[in-house]
Amino acid sequence: MRLRVRRVGMQQKLGKWSLRFTEAPFILESSSVVGTKEADGPLGGLFDIVGKDDRFGQNTWEKAESSMQRDALTMALGKAHLDASDMDYVFAGDLLGQSMATTFGVENFRIPWFGVYGACSTCGESLSLAAAFVAAGYARHAVAVTSSHFGSAEKQFRFPNQYANQRPVSATWTVTGSAAFIVGSGAGGNEIQAVCDNADSISRKVQIEGITTGVVVDYGIKDAMNMGAAMAPAACELIVNHLSDFGRKASYYDRIVTGDLGSVGQKILIDLCRQKGVDISKNHEDCGMKMFDATNQNTGSGGSGCACSATVLSAYYLPKLRSGELKRILFVPTGALLSPVSFNEGESVPGIAHGVVLEAVI
Amino acid sequence: MRLRVRRVGMQQKLGKWSLRFTEAPFILESSSVVGTKEADGPLGGLFDIVGKDDRFGQNTWEKAESSMQRDALTMALGKAHLDASDMDYVFAGDLLGQSMATTFGVENFRIPWFGVYGACSTCGESLSLAAAFVAAGYARHAVAVTSSHFGSAEKQFRFPNQYANQRPVSATWTVTGSAAFIVGSGAGGNEIQAVCDNADSISRKVQIEGITTGVVVDYGIKDAMNMGAAMAPAACELIVNHLSDFGRKASYYDRIVTGDLGSVGQKILIDLCRQKGVDISKNHEDCGMKMFDATNQNTGSGGSGCACSATVLSAYYLPKLRSGELKRILFVPTGALLSPVSFNEGESVPGIAHGVVLEAVI
Repeated sequence: MRLRVRRVGMQQKLGKWSLRFTEAPFILESSSVVGTKEADGPLGGLFDIVGKDDRFGQNTWEKAESSMQRDALTMALGKAHLDASDMDYVFAGDLLGQSMATTFGVENFRIPWFGVYGACSTCGESLSLAAAFVAAGYARHAVAVTSSHFGSAEKQFRFPNQYANQRPVSATWTVTGSAAFIVGSGAGGNEIQAVCDNADSISRKVQIEGITTGVVVDYGIKDAMNMGAAMAPAACELIVNHLSDFGRKASYYDRIVTGDLGSVGQKILIDLCRQKGVDISKNHEDCGMKMFDATNQNTGSGGSGCACSATVLSAYYLPKLRSGELKRILFVPTGALLSPVSFNEGESVPGIAHGVVLEAVI
Repeated sequence: MRLRVRRVGMQQKLGKWSLRFTEAPFILESSSVVGTKEADGPLGGLFDIVGKDDRFGQNTWEKAESSMQRDALTMALGKAHLDASDMDYVFAGDLLGQSMATTFGVENFRIPWFGVYGACSTCGESLSLAAAFVAAGYARHAVAVTSSHFGSAEKQFRFPNQYANQRPVSATWTVTGSAAFIVGSGAGGNEIQAVCDNADSISRKVQIEGITTGVVVDYGIKDAMNMGAAMAPAACELIVNHLSDFGRKASYYDRIVTGDLGSVGQKILIDLCRQKGVDISKNHEDCGMKMFDATNQNTGSGGSGCACSATVLSAYYLPKLRSGELKRILFVPTGALLSPVSFNEGESVPGIAHGVVLEAVI
């Protein structure tokens, strides 16, 4: 028995960097889990789960991060009235060496796993692949998961917390959190959405209209305390490529939302885009700047980490799309590609960004 | 202008773990790069590029690994008479923390990059995703790249080389190497194949008929010097799931080829499969056992690392498929999911495996 399938040919490829899904998949449900500092920030009331402390019942930061992934995935499935066995694939990764938070985060769900790595842009990469698999008919449901933890990230990339290293203004603060996004085709989504959402938000669903995939962009930045500067060129290139591929102006989007450039990186991004003839000064926002109150929370340039863009998308932007306050956003998680080894060997810190077009539809 | 595309629905999903591509993509070309010890092994004469030493002109092991990726990608493109700009996507990753060899390996090619992590199963994961993207019409060409390096891996996971730590018989030897695989649709492949291959091998092309995706399998192994035992349960589960999804017996395949179980892992795998009623004792081979002469090269249980299965596939199995000596193989790269941190914190070493069906067609 050989199943017949038409190959769709090259039609979905748009320009050099992008895919547009004609029958676009939907983000059916999502969830966000954060630590205590995030809960104390401006978005604190919006997250689904807040830890009593940042250990999440575990005895290491790494296990705490895995625990957050389990909580996020479990809650997203619960919201969508689906089981792990309904998920055809999980696309998931994190910041730690060998993606350890994810290995122990996803293992008990027994969902076929494609491990991904895009540094802090991982949410964009995993959403892109989940959307592509659903749009191609390879999956009825695919789930994208990512996480980061301040404790495990500092230990991995910087100094022991006890060392109390001083941080420059350009430094960002790794978000402790995790988010999961269930991507599905429209048919299933309609019903689920109607069941799960409250009366105000039944009317709109969030579809992934297309994706733009990033290349490694290396401006030779070597300052591991200035990730915003390392990532801004990659974000700029992604945005310019995206607008070119889709034939759009920046103003087409209600918001162009980067992941974790912070206030220092935002300035660089807006300047770089201007040099390319693209004005994003009016509609650019950055998840890292949304997450914390920089003045009172002592978080430097802003939040960062895989969980930064992921939890802010789930808790802040998706509800605004569902409610109709926003019609369409270009979501651009950003990643700084460094490791402790590459940094110690004097390598630069290249950046990458992945773009996902999110649209509210009736 | 909105491009019209039919969505193919769920037809390509086969069973719970697998996809079968009705119009299957092809491995158009591939290349392999290895170090000196690999060149001294039984397959030494088959690899495309052999380093004069294991530094590949660089001053660190990590940069040497990136250099091998560049060599592998450049040579595969050359063989296929294609440019980097002809590649719609690169799916690539490695063993190092934050996939550093890949970041600096792929950056200058400026191909949209999806970073992947599957430990030593990465070749299976990247080939799976490249095939899925080509089969869906998302890409005309996608390239899968991976690498490992004995020096960078020992430094990352075990002890300084100078420490001269003793190794148990169950330990494997990380392969220094890299391989790249250009996946494309049939149409392009026909012409390219005819141009590139010599007269003996024009007749057969290698298609990726389908894929089976692995889950994390954790038997609680905590011995970082016995990766074969950690990965064998994942390989067993992958093979059993694959045969169930495709409705096949193990004997359907000329070879079932795991990545780097080594001789210790092979015994465990054959026993585990037998317990599930599957006999692979006659047609199982392991790339790790092919790579080195265990007796004379002091490599313990066999070769390992992302490059092990990747270079052996490129240099040994693909030519056998092209020549018609083999008709079909189930290629199952295997990965041990550990990090230095997880190991030091006493975590177990779960395994994963990804299956790719390779078929020789006229």
